[in-house]
This record gives sequence, C-alpha cells and structure tokens, in this order.
Amino acid sequence: MTDSHLIAYFSEILPQGQILTAAADLEFYGKDVCKQFSAHPSLVLTPSTPQQVADILKICSLHKIAVVPSGGRTGYSAGATATQGEVILSLTKMTRVLEVNAIDQTITVEAGVTTETVRQKAAEHGLYYGVDFTSKGSSHIGGNIATNAGGIRVIRYGNTRDWVLGLVVALPNGELLRCNGKLFKNQTGYDFKSLFIGSEGTLGVIVEATLKLCRPPRESRLCLCGAKDPSVALEVLTSLRKQFTVNVFEYFERSGLELVTAHSSLVDPFKEAHPCYLLIEIEAPHAEERQRFEELLSSFLETGVISDAVLSESSKHSQDLMSLRELIGEMANKHHVPHKNDISVPVPEIPAFLHDLRELFTKKYPQYPSIIFGHVGDGNLHVNVLKPESMEAGAFFKQCETIDQDLFTIVAAAQGSISAEHGVGLLKKPLLHLSRTPEEIDLMRAVKQVFDPAGILNPGKIF
Amino acid sequence: MTDSHLIAYFSEILPQGQILTAAADLEFYGKDVCKQFSAHPSLVLTPSTPQQVADILKICSLHKIAVVPSGGRTGYSAGATATQGEVILSLTKMTRVLEVNAIDQTITVEAGVTTETVRQKAAEHGLYYGVDFTSKGSSHIGGNIATNAGGIRVIRYGNTRDWVLGLVVALPNGELLRCNGKLFKNQTGYDFKSLFIGSEGTLGVIVEATLKLCRPPRESRLCLCGAKDPSVALEVLTSLRKQFTVNVFEYFERSGLELVTAHSSLVDPFKEAHPCYLLIEIEAPHAEERQRFEELLSSFLETGVISDAVLSESSKHSQDLMSLRELIGEMANKHHVPHKNDISVPVPEIPAFLHDLRELFTKKYPQYPSIIFGHVGDGNLHVNVLKPESMEAGAFFKQCETIDQDLFTIVAAAQGSISAEHGVGLLKKPLLHLSRTPEEIDLMRAVKQVFDPAGILNPGKIF
Repeated sequence: MTDSHLIAYFSEILPQGQILTAAADLEFYGKDVCKQFSAHPSLVLTPSTPQQVADILKICSLHKIAVVPSGGRTGYSAGATATQGEVILSLTKMTRVLEVNAIDQTITVEAGVTTETVRQKAAEHGLYYGVDFTSKGSSHIGGNIATNAGGIRVIRYGNTRDWVLGLVVALPNGELLRCNGKLFKNQTGYDFKSLFIGSEGTLGVIVEATLKLCRPPRESRLCLCGAKDPSVALEVLTSLRKQFTVNVFEYFERSGLELVTAHSSLVDPFKEAHPCYLLIEIEAPHAEERQRFEELLSSFLETGVISDAVLSESSKHSQDLMSLRELIGEMANKHHVPHKNDISVPVPEIPAFLHDLRELFTKKYPQYPSIIFGHVGDGNLHVNVLKPESMEAGAFFKQCETIDQDLFTIVAAAQGSISAEHGVGLLKKPLLHLSRTPEEIDLMRAVKQVFDPAGILNPGKIF
Repeated sequence: MTDSHLIAYFSEILPQGQILTAAADLEFYGKDVCKQFSAHPSLVLTPSTPQQVADILKICSLHKIAVVPSGGRTGYSAGATATQGEVILSLTKMTRVLEVNAIDQTITVEAGVTTETVRQKAAEHGLYYGVDFTSKGSSHIGGNIATNAGGIRVIRYGNTRDWVLGLVVALPNGELLRCNGKLFKNQTGYDFKSLFIGSEGTLGVIVEATLKLCRPPRESRLCLCGAKDPSVALEVLTSLRKQFTVNVFEYFERSGLELVTAHSSLVDPFKEAHPCYLLIEIEAPHAEERQRFEELLSSFLETGVISDAVLSESSKHSQDLMSLRELIGEMANKHHVPHKNDISVPVPEIPAFLHDLRELFTKKYPQYPSIIFGHVGDGNLHVNVLKPESMEAGAFFKQCETIDQDLFTIVAAAQGSISAEHGVGLLKKPLLHLSRTPEEIDLMRAVKQVFDPAGILNPGKIF
C-alpha cells in the first residue's frame, strides 16, 4: 500500500497536523530505546481522543494495515519499534488527567499521561502512586500497563498490574471496551483488564486507565551495606521482613558502583571496597523502629553477615545512596555499549543463581565486562554485558547471542524468566520458548486471534 | 450416555473408591449453598493428583462429557451446582500443602486445601494470608481463586487475585498448564494466570496454587460507631485514610444488629438504637496512633458525624463487635429464607446508592424485610430480602425477580456490578448483561472456545 493511500484513509479521521510523515518524525517515533533494530514506519498517527484511536484501528483492520502502538518509547525490548513499514499509533497527544478522587483513592488518566504526572497529581491530593522507576518522566501510563512496568519499589508496592483498577481499550474492530470502570470488587465473568495488562499492544490499544492510589509512604530509613558475597542477601532480607515493612531491597556489585562514581559526582561512601552492596529502605515512622533497625544492622555487622553499613542522615544523603544504584543502567548506556538482559528467578534461587552467573562471566567470558544489579528482593536482576572498546559492535552483539544461550540455560535451570519487566517485544522473541511452552504460545496466538482477527496489532511482537 | 459407560471411562483413571454414585454423595457434592437449583449430577469424581484431573478432562473432551469443577461448595451463585447430569469433579482429595517458604513469603498448596489451612500454615511460619471471610473453614483455595473471593479485609489486603503468584491448571485437552511458577516479575507474554482467576471453572481446573504471604498484621484498634445516616460513611472513610492504614470498614443497619442480637448471645453495645453502624479497624501498633484515632473519633462525635462509638477493650470484645457484622449473613440464612444479592458500586456512589436502595424497599416493597450490610469501603453491599413468614417460597422468589429488576436498575445507574464477590454461576447468569456488554460476552465465549473447544467445562455457567 502506498503512503498516499494510507494518508487518504487516515485523513478521514485525523486533521492533517496529526499525521506525521517527515523523516525526523518517522525516526523519532519509530522506535523505543532498544538500539538493535532500525525504525521504518510508513507514517505516524497522533490521535487525540479515544474515538479517533478506535476509528484508526477499524480502518486498519479493514485494510490489513499493521499498527504499532507507541507510548513514551522508553522500552528496552523494541515492543514499540516499527521495522517493516507499520503505522505508528502514538498516544502522545492523549494527556488529559480526567479525575483524581480522594474518596476512593483513584486517578483516571488518558494513556499518554506520564508516570511522573500520575505521581505528581496524586501527591497534589495527598495520595501516592506506587510505581517508580528511572524513566518515569517520559514513560507513558499506557505503555507501563501494556508492559506491566515494575521498578525499584516492587517489593513494597508491586508491579503496574497491582495498580490498575479499570481500563478503556480500543479494539481492532473499532469498539471501545470499558473494563471494570471504578469497581474494587466485580466478579462478573472473565477479567479482560488483566489480559490487556502486559500484552504489549498486541490485543488492543489502552486509551484510558483508572489507577488505584494509596496513602503516601511514611517516614523511612535507608541504608547501604557492603558485603563479601551475595549469598547473604536472603538472610538479610528474611530477617528484615520479619520485623519491618521493606520498601527497597536492591543489589549491585563493585563494578556498578565504580561505573557510577567514575561518571558522576557521587562518591563511594565506604573506606574499603566491597565485592557487593545491598541497598535497603524500610518504613520507620517511629523512633522505636529506627532503633530496632540499627540494632539489626549492628547484629549483621557483629556476625559478619555484612562488612560495613552507611545509614542515610538526610534526604539528600538518601538520594545519593539511592543514585549509586539507580544510575547504573543509565551510566552503562551513556558510557558504554551494553547488551542488556532483564531476568528473574524465584527469590530463594538468588544466591546460587548469582554464583553461577559470576562463574560464567569470570571463567568463560572474562574479556567481556559485566555489570549485574537489580531488584534482588523480587528475584529480578539486570545483567549488562559491555562491549570491549576494541571490538566492533556487530561482532559484539553476535557474540552476545552465544553468551545469552549460556545465561538463559542458567535462568531456565532456576525456573526463571527471560524477561522480568522489560517485556518481549522483538528483542526477546527468539527466547520466548525458554519461558513459555509451545502449548502456551499456541494459546497466546489463539487468544490474539479472538481480539485481533486481522492481525493488525503489533504483528511480530512477543511471538 | 449411560452411567455405566461413564464409570467405565473413569475407572481407567481412578480407583473405584474415588468414583461416587450413591444418592447421598450425588446430593452432597452436587451443589453449593445456593438453594435455588437442585443437584442432578450423574456421578462424582474425586481425583487425588493433578495428573488424574488432567486425564479426566481429556476423557471428557473426547466424549463430550460435561464437568462441574467443585471445591468447598460454599459459593452462593450455583457455580458448582450440577443441574443436568454433569459429572462433578471434586478437588476434595487434593489437600497437600506442598511448601511454605519464609524467604520469598509464599505457600504452595493443592486446590482442595481450605482457606483456613492456608492461614494456619502461614501463621505457623510467622506469616499471614490476607483473604479472610466467614466460610474460610470449608471453602477451598481452588474455589477462592476460581471466584476471586473477597471478604472482610479487602480494603486492606485486596481480593484473592492479589494473592495468587502462580497456578497449575488442568486444561480440557489433558495438559497441565504451569502459569508463572514462583516469579514475582515475569513479563513474557499473556498472563493466563489472571484469566483463570475468577473464571468460575469454565476455562480450566485449578489444581495447584502458589500464594503470596506477608508479615502478620500489626496491633490494631477496632471501633463500632452508631450513625444517623449512611451519608457520613465516606467522610469518615476519607478522614481515616488520610492518617491511618484501614484494615476493616464495614456497614450495617439496625435490622442487621437486631437479627444478630435476637439469635445469639451478643448484645447491642449502645444505650440507644442507631439507624446504622460503621465497624472500623485501623492498624495502630504505637500509642501515638491509638491516641490520634481516639482524637479523630472524638471530633466525629463533637461535630455530630457519628452519634456514638464503642472502642474495643480486649480481643474478646473486638471479636464480639466484629461478630455483630459477621454473623448477619449466617443468621439471615439460619432464621429466615433470604434472597441474596451481592452488588458493588464505585465507592463515591455509596451514599446516594444506599439512599436509593432504602427508598426502594421502604416505598415500593414495604412488606419485604430487607437487611443491607457489607464492605462499604470497597463499594460492596450485600442485600438480603427476607421471605415474609406467611408467603410461599415459590411466590417469594418469583416476586424477588421483580424486586431485582428495580434493584439492578439502580445498580446500573451507579455504574455498578451485579456480582461483587459471589460470582455469576447459574444464579446471576440472566443478569450478566447488566454488568457486561454483548460484545464482552461474545469475547468471553470466544476465549472459552480457545481453552475449552469441546465446551465441557461448567457449561451454562456465567454466560
């Protein structure tokens, strides 16, 4: 189909300014942050109402036009990348905050509202939205829901799935499906809302969401611990959880700390270098809890479970300690060419898994620097392999395919997932069979056929 | 198909003692607590392993034998009732607790384990399972998941859906589908686990579940308030939530309190009769919180928001106050013939909704006593209409169909649900169109077709 045909179809629905064809727009909207695929959309549509989205999908179904739904394009797995002339459907103009309700503690927004805006609007009403991650300033709520975004406070607040109360979804047949509205209890047949969450734009296009909010976090206490070995992580976590509400439980290695301190004003808060670090935040609104936390840390130090500990002394200090962990991914992107994996295993498997991972990189691939860090309290680790400076990118990424095979053999042995929070998109599609059985993938295809019989929605993504 | 043919098929899979045909067994296993349908199963199968369940389903698919999955039979909507010669597949022999893990705070059980057993096993490991309701001693976890059971602490701990980490589900094709295992983060394609939750045994048979557990509730403070009018409920709720973690926020009317005190040793704790009551529990582990709670209650009393308040003085006292609310449903069943509805509306709609409901019963149906109570903090109300003593049951239930039409018109106007936590089953099937659109019901049929192409699983339930 020629571009002029496409433009004619969509001009029936959208004013001219909402159909973008300039090369810069195609490049900008054509992909997410995954750099392993090139953007080749045919054009970019920027509808501003739910009905326009539905009408676009109806036209696309009728003429078998492939559509890539696109949010803040902060994804790592090329879920929002158009590689073969698809039409990009960007939700970027759908930014209305429709309601913040302090009575039922909900917010209703259009899909193009950023995660940060949701958090800010909640805060303006004395409320809190629990999903928090580095790219919150640009990521869209619609994309968060489509990929079930996680982040740094999942151990306390869960994934995006846990915050979605209701959705409005545009279906390929041009209908707007209203799922659940604002009901906290509604047991009337299949919960399609849950099916759309995490479906990466392959079943419908989320145009509006009602999210749960909650009371803001109470005063907390943050601590960075240095440790000899990741094997202590679970002992620390289990002891903490027995008596505290844990807000953050993160892990990184010396290499991560060195990366961040080398490229920022942040400094290593310890006198000595430690092989690995645990970043812990607990809820502690009362002096009694802060006291007990310090006592527990002291006992960890005395028994050698941890080697050193720094308790934050101010909110600025907390932010600095937090940034030592939070900036690792960003610094790897900025100062290196990383190959990223985002995997998860059952939490009890973490020590053995980290041990096997370290063995793999130290013994079999010593020439490739690796940065391992992540949300260890959720069983979720980010594994970054860095391109050696002397190596060609092509050869490096080729080599990473071999490394991944070894890595994912270890993941599979631990009953883990090939993608914890980054989704499958195009990037992880060849690996899906490691996390899901052929029978499950067949069921996914059949369910997609129900919602998207013409196969127009994000074709080729996930499976 | 004759019963002897059926027995021959299943004798290949189950030993003789696990195929029940006695009239008493057919009657006992043939239905749940909904009394509006009679039990007519052809026989009862009681498999003891996941593989047996899968094998049974395969045989049923092959020979188009309708199967009704059955748990603790505590449901109110005839979701587990066999009315037309179906085979009952009871999970009653699948009662193994497979693992309690204090590291990742999970429990893995077979589907026939009771809710109470899960709660007890969790407690033995210093952990807590947040779903709590009156029938927990006999209800099965499998049934809880199949109906997304709610209960009395949803405002704090959510519905069953929020506690399910992984499932093993037997499919009609004889496969065992493992959904998610023990992963807290796993973004690899469609989340079928969420689709099975609440599907009332129409897509697959849940045979095993891994549930999340949490730290036990901290010390709490319980209070029963008397009020003039339900319109104050939201003001009280919103004020409470601003500064406390609310564990329980329940509503009942004078008629509910009179029903319970008339038929139990419990007494009205107030000197005066109040038109309605709010039962509140907040988390208050520190004296400071208890102090603030008392101050807030005092201010409600001073400003006339509430008319009176009783703070519990002991755990026995708490239980008594709680029982004034918890026993209402049971006493209605025991001492009357009730017609029950379990509806929900968005929380902000509660006052107007309760007003309209009261008007309906007072003005249009004054001859029918009604008991209205429920989880008002979740927008969920139980509406019991009681059969007048002088009336025939048949005529009463016939009349209730007319009352329901009026009731559900009010529910629909408030964007509410015809079934908040009791499910649809057979009982609410004729009303499903009031909560879900024809398009949604068509999608449900199509999704069922994917998982159950022979249509053997709980046919005729939900839609």
